[in-house]
Amino acid sequence: MSLTNATPLEVAQAARTGSRKLAVLSTGERNAALTAIHNALADGKDEVLAANIKDLEAANKAAAGGTLSQSLVKRLDLGKKGKYEDMLQGILDVRDLEDPINKTTARTLLDDNLTLSRITCPIGVLLIIFEARPEVIANISALAIKSGNAAILKGGRESNHSFAAIASIISRALSTTAVPSDCLQLVQTHDVISDLLKLDTYIDLCIPRGGNKLVRHVKDSTAIPVLGHADGICCTYLCGDYPAEKATKIIVDAKVSYPAGCNALEQLLVAPDALATTLPTIAEALLKKGVSLRCDPDSLAALKDNLDPHSAALLQSSTTQDYDTEFLDLILAIKTVANVDEAIVHINTHSSHHTDAILTLSSAAAEKFLAAIDSSSVYWNTSTRMADGQRYGFGTEVGISTNKIHSRGPVGLEGLTIYKWVIVGDAQVSTEYGAGGKLWKHERLPIEDEDIARNAEEKELLRKYRIGEGVMSS
Amino acid sequence: MSLTNATPLEVAQAARTGSRKLAVLSTGERNAALTAIHNALADGKDEVLAANIKDLEAANKAAAGGTLSQSLVKRLDLGKKGKYEDMLQGILDVRDLEDPINKTTARTLLDDNLTLSRITCPIGVLLIIFEARPEVIANISALAIKSGNAAILKGGRESNHSFAAIASIISRALSTTAVPSDCLQLVQTHDVISDLLKLDTYIDLCIPRGGNKLVRHVKDSTAIPVLGHADGICCTYLCGDYPAEKATKIIVDAKVSYPAGCNALEQLLVAPDALATTLPTIAEALLKKGVSLRCDPDSLAALKDNLDPHSAALLQSSTTQDYDTEFLDLILAIKTVANVDEAIVHINTHSSHHTDAILTLSSAAAEKFLAAIDSSSVYWNTSTRMADGQRYGFGTEVGISTNKIHSRGPVGLEGLTIYKWVIVGDAQVSTEYGAGGKLWKHERLPIEDEDIARNAEEKELLRKYRIGEGVMSS
Repeated sequence: MSLTNATPLEVAQAARTGSRKLAVLSTGERNAALTAIHNALADGKDEVLAANIKDLEAANKAAAGGTLSQSLVKRLDLGKKGKYEDMLQGILDVRDLEDPINKTTARTLLDDNLTLSRITCPIGVLLIIFEARPEVIANISALAIKSGNAAILKGGRESNHSFAAIASIISRALSTTAVPSDCLQLVQTHDVISDLLKLDTYIDLCIPRGGNKLVRHVKDSTAIPVLGHADGICCTYLCGDYPAEKATKIIVDAKVSYPAGCNALEQLLVAPDALATTLPTIAEALLKKGVSLRCDPDSLAALKDNLDPHSAALLQSSTTQDYDTEFLDLILAIKTVANVDEAIVHINTHSSHHTDAILTLSSAAAEKFLAAIDSSSVYWNTSTRMADGQRYGFGTEVGISTNKIHSRGPVGLEGLTIYKWVIVGDAQVSTEYGAGGKLWKHERLPIEDEDIARNAEEKELLRKYRIGEGVMSS
Repeated sequence: MSLTNATPLEVAQAARTGSRKLAVLSTGERNAALTAIHNALADGKDEVLAANIKDLEAANKAAAGGTLSQSLVKRLDLGKKGKYEDMLQGILDVRDLEDPINKTTARTLLDDNLTLSRITCPIGVLLIIFEARPEVIANISALAIKSGNAAILKGGRESNHSFAAIASIISRALSTTAVPSDCLQLVQTHDVISDLLKLDTYIDLCIPRGGNKLVRHVKDSTAIPVLGHADGICCTYLCGDYPAEKATKIIVDAKVSYPAGCNALEQLLVAPDALATTLPTIAEALLKKGVSLRCDPDSLAALKDNLDPHSAALLQSSTTQDYDTEFLDLILAIKTVANVDEAIVHINTHSSHHTDAILTLSSAAAEKFLAAIDSSSVYWNTSTRMADGQRYGFGTEVGISTNKIHSRGPVGLEGLTIYKWVIVGDAQVSTEYGAGGKLWKHERLPIEDEDIARNAEEKELLRKYRIGEGVMSS
């Protein structure tokens, strides 16, 4: 991990060179590096927390001066009970996930002794730009090494001291392992970012972890592919047949459990036959939790008729803009739609293609919705807050992607891999096939045994079996 | 298919709207549209060829004036024996491929009655920019409709009349099918491209099919993800243990069979113990085929010692730049490398990460090479010309990608798809799980039965079985 005054080009080149060495290390060597990082950070806790106090002091001053929010100060604090230990445990959790690389995911017999395999491999060099939370550096470093990728990390300015301390410890730890230290590069000054974004020869993927503005800026400034999401405008469509109690439970979870999350609910679409029946129960529960309800005329009228005067007095009228806004706050826009088709058109136009849900007992309506909604996650009878890598069983996540290519929804280790095509042959050539020549076999071969054969001996046996004895003899 | 004077924004919006309708059509409806296009183009052959003659006349004039190459004129000609029929057959070939969308590729039981599925779906709207060959419009239209994507197509100026005729026929054919005509938009003027490249809200993926300059220009001008390859600098490393006869067969195929192809061999790396043994045989065969050999000092000396004086007189010395050049011609750069490690470093630095091969009998050397080479296709004992969608068994290809994300190597229908995450639940919510709450099951469920159950009844049965009777009752 570099903390030198290297130029952006030197940083990117070093990461690229390191990435090729990292890519061919064994699962055991990569896992051992994660163990070493974990142990070094456990031993270096005092050193990191001392640096963190410097960041906190500066942040508190800035907050007192009004140039930094109190919530940001809180996010900086690594000394909060359990936070450091969670960071340490996160490294071991990533280490213990299944190795995402060197997996055969497809095999085709092209001809006798001519086999095509698709094998997962690292992407190469990642550029990850993230905000204040200093513990993210440990998490991202673990994900990068586990997936065999080098990473250039740019953190928030506010956590500079904490970053430097963590980076220095990780660097020392890596020097005792097979993973080259160059595989993790920390850049601390903001002005290098624009130079790094030009280096698409060396950097393969950029992951900005931050707000809309950051992601937009990165996308507009680079030819490097960008993985990220700009907004989280999530919608739920409530049908008249869905029980009020379950609907309330789902909507309250989606809106209230973490309003600042990108998977929080921002819009509730309501079928006409739910306006006077289910909606009032839901609205009452949301108002009790302090949620502001911004209603279209139909839902406003229905709620005014069905809520007690005190609750009714809290209702607000929505504006057109409310249906294109990520509130990230205890605010919910409510809109009446005629039917599932209208709900689909509204969501495909106004949601941010992140996570949208339908609440209904009708499998016909649900299947129409699940098929037609163009979002990374689409749910039937559950909360939009389910959109999360840990909840999906990925162990951890790099972020949530609203991209339409590569990786969509919560991105786990698999999203940090790609594949290569490998052909093993015996001097067959292209001109032997086609018009008048040999025919391709194109026979799909099983790959399951790849997963079953876990130990090295079995894999070696399989390899020999597949290559065939005769292939190697000239 | 629009041939109106619509603005780029209108074109993109219409494609987006059409794409959502196309995305929910059944396999049968999409296939029926391909049949209709095929039949209409078969019936309209005279109309298309009449338009094609206009393009050819203009092109011949330009060629006579020196502003267009003769090879481009040839590529324009749809009247060449068998070309039109090949175009028609290509549409039926794509129609008969397996449907790439609505496939379940992963399933996880999150909890009782709470199932997560990953289901393939179209990407949305493609922008495809291609060069002269007018038959590509039929091929690309077929691929787009088959994969459920809308496409905005921009062809070369030289084939304007042919495009317009084909587009008009496809448009009429689509109007009799379930596929909205708006799903295929033809743009004919070059100046709209820069506006279209700004519309990343409506366009999900850009595929430039053309030279290095076009791809670079597109990548530098847009925030839309770009799928393509800039160069095809392919290398082969020859070890001393590989038999001369097989090596010659492979190298001649790779260099000579289609030198203008992006998968043609441009560099031969030679181990020291092959210089005086195998290399002379290979060099002799290449020289006979008219290939210019540009040699480093060691290979030049070895060949001069081992070839007859006439052949030796044809040899050239290489320059540094020859090892970074895509010749696309009967030229081969030859370089001596000390061992497989040096070959790997050279290829990872100088090849274009397209397709690289090793020729050896040593499985140790081959496995090192296959693991360490960072290219989309890596081969053991076969020709780099194997890198092709048809040869890989994809039926057809959109192009070859040297991207490090989404799709790598020959891109077939699968590269035009992405997935969505679908959860079917029964009012479970996020706050019920985690610290002190319920535990996630995260049990991987089988997906094979999805493939086995081909008919609608079986699929419906499976669906009901998975959802469970109890889920739907409130």
